[in-house]
Amino acid sequence: MFTAKNDKPREACGVAGVWNAGEASKLVYLMLYALQHRGQEGAGIVSLENGLFHTVRSRGQVADVFSEASLASLVGQAAIGHVRYSTTGSSVLKNAQPLAVEYARGNLAVAHNGNLVNAEEIRQELQEYGSIFQTTVDTEVLIHLIARSPRKKFVDALSSSLEKVRGAYSLLVMTNDLLIAARDPYGFRPLALGKIGDGYALASETCAFDLIGAEYLRDVEPGEMVILSKSGLSSQRFLPPAENSAFCIFENIYFSRPDSHIFGTSCWQAREMLGRILARESHVDADLVVPVPDSGVCAAVGYAHEAKLPLEIALIRNHYIGRTFIEPSQHIRDFGVKLKFNVVRESVAGKRVIVVDDSLVRGTTSRKIIKMLRQAGAREVHMRLSSPPVTQPCFYGMDFPTRQELIAATHSLEEIATYLRVDSVAYLSVAGMLQAMPDQSQKFCRACFTGDYPVDFQKRSLLAAMDVCAKEVGQDAETPDAEKVSEK
Amino acid sequence: MFTAKNDKPREACGVAGVWNAGEASKLVYLMLYALQHRGQEGAGIVSLENGLFHTVRSRGQVADVFSEASLASLVGQAAIGHVRYSTTGSSVLKNAQPLAVEYARGNLAVAHNGNLVNAEEIRQELQEYGSIFQTTVDTEVLIHLIARSPRKKFVDALSSSLEKVRGAYSLLVMTNDLLIAARDPYGFRPLALGKIGDGYALASETCAFDLIGAEYLRDVEPGEMVILSKSGLSSQRFLPPAENSAFCIFENIYFSRPDSHIFGTSCWQAREMLGRILARESHVDADLVVPVPDSGVCAAVGYAHEAKLPLEIALIRNHYIGRTFIEPSQHIRDFGVKLKFNVVRESVAGKRVIVVDDSLVRGTTSRKIIKMLRQAGAREVHMRLSSPPVTQPCFYGMDFPTRQELIAATHSLEEIATYLRVDSVAYLSVAGMLQAMPDQSQKFCRACFTGDYPVDFQKRSLLAAMDVCAKEVGQDAETPDAEKVSEK
Amino acid sequence: MFTAKNDKPREACGVAGVWNAGEASKLVYLMLYALQHRGQEGAGIVSLENGLFHTVRSRGQVADVFSEASLASLVGQAAIGHVRYSTTGSSVLKNAQPLAVEYARGNLAVAHNGNLVNAEEIRQELQEYGSIFQTTVDTEVLIHLIARSPRKKFVDALSSSLEKVRGAYSLLVMTNDLLIAARDPYGFRPLALGKIGDGYALASETCAFDLIGAEYLRDVEPGEMVILSKSGLSSQRFLPPAENSAFCIFENIYFSRPDSHIFGTSCWQAREMLGRILARESHVDADLVVPVPDSGVCAAVGYAHEAKLPLEIALIRNHYIGRTFIEPSQHIRDFGVKLKFNVVRESVAGKRVIVVDDSLVRGTTSRKIIKMLRQAGAREVHMRLSSPPVTQPCFYGMDFPTRQELIAATHSLEEIATYLRVDSVAYLSVAGMLQAMPDQSQKFCRACFTGDYPVDFQKRSLLAAMDVCAKEVGQDAETPDAEKVSEK
Amino acid sequence: MFTAKNDKPREACGVAGVWNAGEASKLVYLMLYALQHRGQEGAGIVSLENGLFHTVRSRGQVADVFSEASLASLVGQAAIGHVRYSTTGSSVLKNAQPLAVEYARGNLAVAHNGNLVNAEEIRQELQEYGSIFQTTVDTEVLIHLIARSPRKKFVDALSSSLEKVRGAYSLLVMTNDLLIAARDPYGFRPLALGKIGDGYALASETCAFDLIGAEYLRDVEPGEMVILSKSGLSSQRFLPPAENSAFCIFENIYFSRPDSHIFGTSCWQAREMLGRILARESHVDADLVVPVPDSGVCAAVGYAHEAKLPLEIALIRNHYIGRTFIEPSQHIRDFGVKLKFNVVRESVAGKRVIVVDDSLVRGTTSRKIIKMLRQAGAREVHMRLSSPPVTQPCFYGMDFPTRQELIAATHSLEEIATYLRVDSVAYLSVAGMLQAMPDQSQKFCRACFTGDYPVDFQKRSLLAAMDVCAKEVGQDAETPDAEKVSEK
Repeated sequence: MFTAKNDKPREACGVAGVWNAGEASKLVYLMLYALQHRGQEGAGIVSLENGLFHTVRSRGQVADVFSEASLASLVGQAAIGHVRYSTTGSSVLKNAQPLAVEYARGNLAVAHNGNLVNAEEIRQELQEYGSIFQTTVDTEVLIHLIARSPRKKFVDALSSSLEKVRGAYSLLVMTNDLLIAARDPYGFRPLALGKIGDGYALASETCAFDLIGAEYLRDVEPGEMVILSKSGLSSQRFLPPAENSAFCIFENIYFSRPDSHIFGTSCWQAREMLGRILARESHVDADLVVPVPDSGVCAAVGYAHEAKLPLEIALIRNHYIGRTFIEPSQHIRDFGVKLKFNVVRESVAGKRVIVVDDSLVRGTTSRKIIKMLRQAGAREVHMRLSSPPVTQPCFYGMDFPTRQELIAATHSLEEIATYLRVDSVAYLSVAGMLQAMPDQSQKFCRACFTGDYPVDFQKRSLLAAMDVCAKEVGQDAETPDAEKVSEK
Repeated sequence: MFTAKNDKPREACGVAGVWNAGEASKLVYLMLYALQHRGQEGAGIVSLENGLFHTVRSRGQVADVFSEASLASLVGQAAIGHVRYSTTGSSVLKNAQPLAVEYARGNLAVAHNGNLVNAEEIRQELQEYGSIFQTTVDTEVLIHLIARSPRKKFVDALSSSLEKVRGAYSLLVMTNDLLIAARDPYGFRPLALGKIGDGYALASETCAFDLIGAEYLRDVEPGEMVILSKSGLSSQRFLPPAENSAFCIFENIYFSRPDSHIFGTSCWQAREMLGRILARESHVDADLVVPVPDSGVCAAVGYAHEAKLPLEIALIRNHYIGRTFIEPSQHIRDFGVKLKFNVVRESVAGKRVIVVDDSLVRGTTSRKIIKMLRQAGAREVHMRLSSPPVTQPCFYGMDFPTRQELIAATHSLEEIATYLRVDSVAYLSVAGMLQAMPDQSQKFCRACFTGDYPVDFQKRSLLAAMDVCAKEVGQDAETPDAEKVSEK
Repeated sequence: MFTAKNDKPREACGVAGVWNAGEASKLVYLMLYALQHRGQEGAGIVSLENGLFHTVRSRGQVADVFSEASLASLVGQAAIGHVRYSTTGSSVLKNAQPLAVEYARGNLAVAHNGNLVNAEEIRQELQEYGSIFQTTVDTEVLIHLIARSPRKKFVDALSSSLEKVRGAYSLLVMTNDLLIAARDPYGFRPLALGKIGDGYALASETCAFDLIGAEYLRDVEPGEMVILSKSGLSSQRFLPPAENSAFCIFENIYFSRPDSHIFGTSCWQAREMLGRILARESHVDADLVVPVPDSGVCAAVGYAHEAKLPLEIALIRNHYIGRTFIEPSQHIRDFGVKLKFNVVRESVAGKRVIVVDDSLVRGTTSRKIIKMLRQAGAREVHMRLSSPPVTQPCFYGMDFPTRQELIAATHSLEEIATYLRVDSVAYLSVAGMLQAMPDQSQKFCRACFTGDYPVDFQKRSLLAAMDVCAKEVGQDAETPDAEKVSEK
Repeated sequence: MFTAKNDKPREACGVAGVWNAGEASKLVYLMLYALQHRGQEGAGIVSLENGLFHTVRSRGQVADVFSEASLASLVGQAAIGHVRYSTTGSSVLKNAQPLAVEYARGNLAVAHNGNLVNAEEIRQELQEYGSIFQTTVDTEVLIHLIARSPRKKFVDALSSSLEKVRGAYSLLVMTNDLLIAARDPYGFRPLALGKIGDGYALASETCAFDLIGAEYLRDVEPGEMVILSKSGLSSQRFLPPAENSAFCIFENIYFSRPDSHIFGTSCWQAREMLGRILARESHVDADLVVPVPDSGVCAAVGYAHEAKLPLEIALIRNHYIGRTFIEPSQHIRDFGVKLKFNVVRESVAGKRVIVVDDSLVRGTTSRKIIKMLRQAGAREVHMRLSSPPVTQPCFYGMDFPTRQELIAATHSLEEIATYLRVDSVAYLSVAGMLQAMPDQSQKFCRACFTGDYPVDFQKRSLLAAMDVCAKEVGQDAETPDAEKVSEK
């Protein structure tokens, strides 16, 4: 069995919610479908009707998880949903989000995008006081903090609980009579607010609004709670925004859909500009520009425009790809990459080719693509990346391989060129990357490139954070590089 | 339930086979995966081991139909496979291909791409002599003809049976000790022969060879049988090739994967040239060229090069799309097209846009795409199609809507422009289309554009042929335009 | 995996049909449920509505095969159904009954209980003339004979086809406008006719009528066709009844449900009388009579009455038993029999026990039951069987083990007693068995006890007949005793 | 859809466990299979291996819940399991037992047979202190009590938690290194201890030991904890046994399998004696005794012996019955009872029949059986019940219908006879019932006959207790009679 593993960082989930709209769960279902690229291994929706919750959650992609019948069971005018990555195994289902519990005050459901860096400490403390955890997801500590809060008003209980957790979180929280959207003071992950009819929509990306015809209003601010209730929308700060925000710049580089507005600006525009600046910084004489589909397309378009070179669609991607393939036991050379890509020989034979992609993680896939281009007769191959070298792990909701596997963390540029067998390789500079962002007043987290982590974390959290979204706190996975990172 | 209906003609199946190679069924499985675009509603493989057949067939895409276990059951050094479209309903499974039967001489399996125009007459005659049909597929008449043939050698029985059927067929036929590939004298549908190790591979398109590392040798010729046996490969003509071949030109326009060689030449090259000639014939002043993904990409690249205009990827396609979606009962404007496409506003706002696609069938999807571009602020929108107007049904293996639904069959160019709400619309000319083909010595069937049908058919067949691949011969579906067409 | 194999002969299927009644398929479904003991590995129903057939067939028990939805799809006022045994494997589904085909005259469906002894010869002859068989079931030859018959009236085509087949058959045949019930001239297998409302019901046993509230009219006679059409019921002989009928006496001994009337008389009465005569023939002094549930209960009641001994329910049967169990790899002594039976110690401890069962096949289960009784403290154990020793195979629709496995075929009475570890064992005499039958004018087939086969068969058929119901004609299973038998 | 509802009280689950034996989970699986009659709607097993738990739980019968693969995943030398009834709906799966959680001290799993009468009070109190409940099962309060216990040793934490709960419980509790069996001080529900190899087995009934070849040692005593650890077996009292034990006498009347020893004595013996005393108390002149299978068989045997009347098996039970049947919309008279029973006419026609069953609940099924007997020609029908009239609900783990539905709670004996249309009806007396018990020194709970409840309960619990095993505490189901009962 061959797993069509993406040689890319993986996003830690997407969230969507609707308040005060007919068929709320169907709208959330569609928004999750638009956010499918943020998490393809599990999905769930909790709907609210007259103080009762209805839940459907399962492994698989949105189209597999929900049926006409199961969606019909999700009655009510409000709903929240979640798409996620997860590790495989028996724990998957119980870890499915949104988490939903019944406790002394009634029902509570939470959908979380991000990663809490002090979840493990809080969890151990709560367990010592007799709390029983249902899942191994970091999000559950928040639920127990709320359940144990002495504060009478739910909004206060949530506020004081959020004060205790640290890290990255864009949250949707639903109770018997409220839907609350909250974003950590650094604003690591995006969270957009929209209007649909007389009600509201919330989603990780605006492309979800486009699908259901909702109108984008604004982002939920760092440190802000947007509270939706019978009396409409109100806003409250539970923590002051951080001095410098720390928007995840990888959303603009790779994660988000190019047709989304992220952190208030156009993702497509950011990516095309990344390509243009890349061309300015590291252009090389060549005959044509070839994007690695689909991740490199926007930057390649920008590069080609800037370099005034023809853009060729010389790499064809197979879009019928499922997640696993049955591999012959006999050797098929470069099997995995062939499943996803094929080269159009006529377009590259005898040509000098600039291949544009957004980033290099392990480099294994890129190496095979380049080999295919060479076999198709490309005379020269130059690799250009529209982001700086990734050298550090992320603790705020992205799932990179371990440091040892990050090619740029352990190899020089020359070594990378040799490994990829290219005539040249060039990354975008950090300065160039920041310069490409549409709103120059915004501050971004770029820790994965630089190691400057905006939020401190203790070693223990660090270990736990390695497997971000479906973090199995109870199991200490091997994380050999964690020590080094924590010394910084 | 919303069905993500493709507003495109549908191909009538793809075939793949392997002779004398380890894990033959796994290789065929991979080839079917590469041919998935030719038929996504059913798949099957029959393998041959020591004179015994093993079969797995089911509805669904290749990844759903086969499991590690089911593939492991398909033992043997030879196998043939099939991907297909089908109508839904109880008859689907029994109509699944490859058809496989046991008869007096042993086992027989057939995988067929194409459409027989005199199947219904032959079927009725056979039934009157007591034959019992298992399916409603046209291919089954061939099997009964073989079973009733007095010729003793299988190859002779097949030859004489093929002499009786008329129409389009690229066939793979497997017996206890042979794999035979045969193509009708007109060569309507493609069929390529390759080499893998000491054995052979056969496939509708060469992209299937690329995936498994087989080497393309040549096409099976019109009227030729390629016979694979223990003694290796031999070839035999069962009918003289038609004076003029009738290769399906729609393979080069839309059906085949651009990375395939079809009828011996590069599909990508043909498509880019279609785009270039389109630009020469009907260019209009504009700011940028936008392809409709994925069908319009190659032609758009050619158009942009020729017109020296920037190519923009302004239409983003959602690749997670499944086949059905649950639609809210409340109205979402242009729901279906939004599921598949979203526009990048920044790229088109205030611009004059040339939208390039390969063809127009109903025009419904194009109309919605254009509406989205206008809503995103496009100043002008010009539609360019890299093929002539489709006005006639196909009887050789393509599945068009009925004539009444073909927009070009019933509307003038002006009416089409009004319907699409474009500033201009232009099709490629028939001459331009033919000129774009890489090998100018080849003769193509272009009946869907011109009504010049290379092979005669009787009215009865015509009625039957309306639903090509999974043709339910026994049921006369409504085909109001059939009369008119047959008068020509 | 432990298979809860029944150490009993297996019946070759049951049939049921309804003509001219509302919800015909639901009535047939209920009748099949009442006939479930006649075949538990597959079930199917074909219904007729305005000349169209609707079919549901699958592996499994009746409750698994049919759902509310699938039954609802079986519309129409007429239907026939079938329950069957089958060998496992890929061929199972295609062999499911009722067989249904479309041929030159329209639709045809057949449900068959019995076994044709010359199916293989006919099949080979038909294949040589180009017929293609869909299944490996003997019944299919009948369908091809009908399809090739030159007789114009369907009833005539059926008659002349039935003249060509030999063996045991109780058939239900349905066409576009007829339901015909036919029974071979010997009447091997039962077939009862009943009245329901204005319509008719047909079933292997009358217990099926009791469930749906149909009234038993009479049996279909040997050599008779009962024809149900729009003009009501008519009858016709297609062959003269055999001089001596050959009703299967095992129906009265074991197969049929005791609450059924079989061959016109009460099965319960026959069984109780078998027990009474058994007591008269071979009584031994003892304290109590214990039946092996459920097969030995009726005879044990008769025995206890006759012997004036108390009947004790000392063997408790687990009725939740499924068909397979997961067995520990560590040894559990007599695992299989413990799954089905447990002994009530208090009832047998220190007692002299007469154990009554209907028959011995391999004797393996009986041996274990006796061991359990001894371990529970039984002082003496005497085995009494309410049928003579089974020593010969059946070619008319029962599935015995091969002769080598039949304990009475290869062992003396003394050896059997030693094997079973009983103080004594006694079988009923053939004369006693015949004397117990309620209607002394009836003639029974008792070939499995005596070797007097009423219908000749050739060696080739014999080989084929070994696996009766789901006979895989194409595969010559090992049948070492076949030669010997055919010499008789 | 017709549900084959049992017109009998329903048992509230069965438990089984194994300590220190190879393939522990397979042994537990087999024991659950032997206990299937105690709960057919859900099953689960938790195994222990090196301090890790492995869990398989699902709806359905044992044979459906476990597969070869899932059992293979339940590795370890210790395991506990559970079979249960449950209400249908979304909550079913999460309520499945054994409950298993991870908490501060490690893993904890609990399998519970019985009903806690103060669960709701404890639950509310715990929730107010911030506990979050995962299920609506009463058993979960025990787990939270343990998690919050300040006692350091697990055995002490369990002891003090058990002191807080009241009601009926036979428990199996497993931790990382212990398996503890505990029974409430009244001993309502049975719990037997056995020896298997070097290890131990625990089960609700001894028939589970017979299947796996375990040897019965003794019952777990009321108020006792049997502690199995690495150092073997030890015992400890957590509460003094109640002055008078309160063994559930319905176990001996109906619930347990007759081949089990229950409360240390033979269930079969008790039942046969119930029948004998019934005959002494209320015999009537008749021709034969007919048991209602299977519930009335043992008592009928006793009755027939005592009355010196022949026992006839005149009611045939269909053992292929599933749980639901698709009923024709047209009326079939007495459909439900016909699915389960059929009458052998010959055995009762013209006879005076005594029908023996264990108990009457609603009386609806009995009424239909009697009607069938009359239609079969029975001259007289006399109903005899081997237990006193059931007039009160049970709060200790049996699931009766509400009082309004209990025929004996609302009707006089004469009215019952009229309703059943019998010539006479008679119940066993309470004194006769107690006299039939094998060990006259034991004290039984007979509250369902007399209203003398051994353990007090508050009204709130009472409401909650109505749906015993899968008690949905959060939902106040309609329980109209609860008020009345609580006034007593």
